[in-house]
Amino acid sequence: MSDTDKLQIIPLGGIGEIGKNMTAIRCGDEIVVIDAGVAFPTAEMMGVDLVTPDISYLRDHRSMIKAIVLTHGHEDHIGSLAFVLRDLPGTPVYGTPLTLGFCRHKLSEYKQLNNAVLRGFEPDTTFISDNFEVEPIRVSHSIPDAVALALHTPAGTLVHTGDFKFDQTPIDGSLFDIARMSRIGEEGVLILLSDCTNVERPGFVQSERVVGETFDRVFSGAKRRVIMACFASNVHRVQQAIDVSVRYGRKVALLGRSMERNMETAKQLGYLKMPEGTRIRAEEIESLPPHMVTIVTTGSQGEPMASLSRMAADEHQKVKIVKGDTVIVSATAIPGNEDLVWRTVNRLFQRGAEVIYDGVMPVHVSGHGYAEELKLMLNLVNPRFVMPVHGEYRMLARYSAMAEQMGWPRQDIVRADIGDIIEVDENAVRNRGKIPQYGAVLIDGAGVGDVSEVVLRDRAHLAQDGFLVIVLGLDQETGEIVAGPEVNSRGFVFMDESEYLIEEVKQKILERLENRTDTADNDYSSIAQDLRTQIGKLLFKRTQRKPMILPVIMEV
Amino acid sequence: MSDTDKLQIIPLGGIGEIGKNMTAIRCGDEIVVIDAGVAFPTAEMMGVDLVTPDISYLRDHRSMIKAIVLTHGHEDHIGSLAFVLRDLPGTPVYGTPLTLGFCRHKLSEYKQLNNAVLRGFEPDTTFISDNFEVEPIRVSHSIPDAVALALHTPAGTLVHTGDFKFDQTPIDGSLFDIARMSRIGEEGVLILLSDCTNVERPGFVQSERVVGETFDRVFSGAKRRVIMACFASNVHRVQQAIDVSVRYGRKVALLGRSMERNMETAKQLGYLKMPEGTRIRAEEIESLPPHMVTIVTTGSQGEPMASLSRMAADEHQKVKIVKGDTVIVSATAIPGNEDLVWRTVNRLFQRGAEVIYDGVMPVHVSGHGYAEELKLMLNLVNPRFVMPVHGEYRMLARYSAMAEQMGWPRQDIVRADIGDIIEVDENAVRNRGKIPQYGAVLIDGAGVGDVSEVVLRDRAHLAQDGFLVIVLGLDQETGEIVAGPEVNSRGFVFMDESEYLIEEVKQKILERLENRTDTADNDYSSIAQDLRTQIGKLLFKRTQRKPMILPVIMEV
Repeated sequence: MSDTDKLQIIPLGGIGEIGKNMTAIRCGDEIVVIDAGVAFPTAEMMGVDLVTPDISYLRDHRSMIKAIVLTHGHEDHIGSLAFVLRDLPGTPVYGTPLTLGFCRHKLSEYKQLNNAVLRGFEPDTTFISDNFEVEPIRVSHSIPDAVALALHTPAGTLVHTGDFKFDQTPIDGSLFDIARMSRIGEEGVLILLSDCTNVERPGFVQSERVVGETFDRVFSGAKRRVIMACFASNVHRVQQAIDVSVRYGRKVALLGRSMERNMETAKQLGYLKMPEGTRIRAEEIESLPPHMVTIVTTGSQGEPMASLSRMAADEHQKVKIVKGDTVIVSATAIPGNEDLVWRTVNRLFQRGAEVIYDGVMPVHVSGHGYAEELKLMLNLVNPRFVMPVHGEYRMLARYSAMAEQMGWPRQDIVRADIGDIIEVDENAVRNRGKIPQYGAVLIDGAGVGDVSEVVLRDRAHLAQDGFLVIVLGLDQETGEIVAGPEVNSRGFVFMDESEYLIEEVKQKILERLENRTDTADNDYSSIAQDLRTQIGKLLFKRTQRKPMILPVIMEV
Repeated sequence: MSDTDKLQIIPLGGIGEIGKNMTAIRCGDEIVVIDAGVAFPTAEMMGVDLVTPDISYLRDHRSMIKAIVLTHGHEDHIGSLAFVLRDLPGTPVYGTPLTLGFCRHKLSEYKQLNNAVLRGFEPDTTFISDNFEVEPIRVSHSIPDAVALALHTPAGTLVHTGDFKFDQTPIDGSLFDIARMSRIGEEGVLILLSDCTNVERPGFVQSERVVGETFDRVFSGAKRRVIMACFASNVHRVQQAIDVSVRYGRKVALLGRSMERNMETAKQLGYLKMPEGTRIRAEEIESLPPHMVTIVTTGSQGEPMASLSRMAADEHQKVKIVKGDTVIVSATAIPGNEDLVWRTVNRLFQRGAEVIYDGVMPVHVSGHGYAEELKLMLNLVNPRFVMPVHGEYRMLARYSAMAEQMGWPRQDIVRADIGDIIEVDENAVRNRGKIPQYGAVLIDGAGVGDVSEVVLRDRAHLAQDGFLVIVLGLDQETGEIVAGPEVNSRGFVFMDESEYLIEEVKQKILERLENRTDTADNDYSSIAQDLRTQIGKLLFKRTQRKPMILPVIMEV
């Protein structure tokens, strides 16, 4: 594909899922990558720490890659940058100041800062390569400095919304640049890639400012400490907590490593305003009267190691929740985290705290626009073709139905999947099949991609019923038992109370070995197979459980 | 406690949690138990099938137990009956006809039907023992035949609401018996134990009938099959699906073992009305035109083995989802199931189905009354003391705050915990400490209560990083290695691709054994400990993972 009159759009993540957003855009022999996010492991991915997109396609087209352009600084948009730059060192990365600030932290954590070439956008259009000019357009989101991107190419203009909403009264005063977006729309857009996360919610999302109004009500009535938990990147939210604290004569402590670091960066870059003397260190909390203290902390998702969860479990070194404290959980649970969040809330209630959470009072608004905002965006950009991204299948389906109702013909609405090659020119959009390798790469400890299906299946099995190991030493000449059988188990039954069962297993092993027709035939693998089957049957009969059985036969 | 002028209330489950409801009420030397439910395991209870209350207290007071009285037929109220009757055979069980019908299934499943003495309530008051008269009061809930219970005792009347709401237009026409409840209230109630599950939601829950209106809209527009998934006990919901199907000339197939069985029972007892010729067998689905078929199925919680989930995964033997099918998921996800439910919905969309779920249209209403209904109940009963039950801590806390706002003094509102002995007479309510043993009993396969903390901790460890087993044969005289080291692992790294690492582990083992100061000192446990530490360090350094390490040393 060396002709530049068409584009190829290759989603590498973020479709059919929430997380690890990444899309490759190819024009001629040049590729620009939009975003480089991570996802969090699902319940099945036991023991896995993080999930990144499979970037084989990028490695295979290394020389074509002109840049990675970032829409904003959330983990699901920048979290896999370190892994990408490890494989593709020196690729220029474009973003707004706060986004790049957050990237710097990530990259230095993974020791990849040396591989990074970080570049700010120019005010208007940034020339990235022969075929790509990138124009950032300011949008509203739950992190400052978020942009949509217009990629101007010889084949036409592609607009990627990034994550967006239209907040008419944003905390930082930075309005969605509707004028610029309209102008781009009027000039003609080939295809729009649109956030569709909140397509299920009718109307418009409320302004971030309503959260501040709730804060004011809560702070004005609070007699002791106020503890506010939110995402560590939610600068607007923290700003509002600071503003209200200042209003009511409270000092503010920031707890949680990511919270401290992000807010430090935001402050340095001018995105967070905190009057001199407002901030206190965690150590100073106890020395001030409770009504003069605000604690801003991580843990709004109930993450077991985060500060709020540790406070709820009474395991935090510096903050002990006492009766009369007010806790604001300023977030909603990400799907999969509900249990952890409610556990934290329940524990805080048990400790006597007054807990304010979404549903009780408006303490959270989404960063993603609702249905009417998605429609507004689609009408402003008025593209020839439209492709929903950043959503699970049901969201993609409902966005497509919405676009169809708005007048886009069904064949002009793209329902893509990860790894698809979507080819678009002024006449049509087509699915050109799949790239050879795509999907998810699981990261566990130091291992990137080495946790296979087999390992995950074994972990699931072990989690369910544990394992039992059988050890036998056989004489290499006679095949007779010279050591063992030793039987040990973990996660199956409590060994101290299962002597009888273990004894029965040993008897069964001896019985099976005696029944061998030819003791000199040391076919260990068939012995092992026989033991696995027979002991498995015995254990199931006795316990209705199916532990993993691992026979180890040694020749002595 | 042989005086009958006071009551002891001992919650054995259902407080600080949703699930396994069970409360013992003692007056003099007699005990009546209200409900006998199960809970589903939390994420930490890996491999556990079910959770029941610890009934040691009941076993210890065997001779005092006069009856188990049931409020309704949901699992969290009757699910542990088989386990209770196994320990306390012959205890009379009282309930309404449908509740007892569902119990019979449960009991025969666990082969405990012979231990059961099931008795229907008398129309007015049922005499259970010298000190207990039980009066059932019809309430509205998401299962027919649900009752609240008034326990009339010499110490006064205790009212337990069971699960309730006030549905003014119930499907079966059976209204909440407000007159009877008011009369009991007027006669004077010592203490009210009230459902508080939905205290967080303001106002009144909508009538079950609104779901029928949605069904009508959906069915009237559906061109092909309609598949409706709900809880297998939700007779009202199924009734509405049948009614609408009949209206639009559709036949109805019931799928899922529990759905078939429950609806069969409900039909026999007259709670489910299905015109002759309406029902078809699963085998007949394919032989009818799609617009004439309704499928009512289990799987509304995304349970992997349930019919709807198998359809979504394209693994159902008799139903294949095709483009144009309409699926109604007529439930909301129970906390912890969200992931599974959304996965099912997403997959159904992927197969081309039109999926209707809560939020898109009103296809579900809760079985538990909202805040105004809780207030109405409290005012009707107007008890001296009030104790919220059936809720997590945050719900108990918010119910208590509500009752206080309504005029109950704080000291008259009981905040109990499982195992507390709450003693109440006409003057005061007091917490008399704890019974000796209480809490949860975990059921895994055939084992009841044998899955200890140790086993669960091991399973969590294995799920995270798997295990590595080291086997060594040592000469019993010289202490020298005569067999092995053998190294094997599961769930840690993919063995086929980790030869180098395994080789390094073996070298390390040999090195450690050579370094023993005295090879004749066969202190196997210290050798094992040393290997566990040293190999653990090596593996962490190489992989950043911490598999469970199990050394097995055999004497040859």
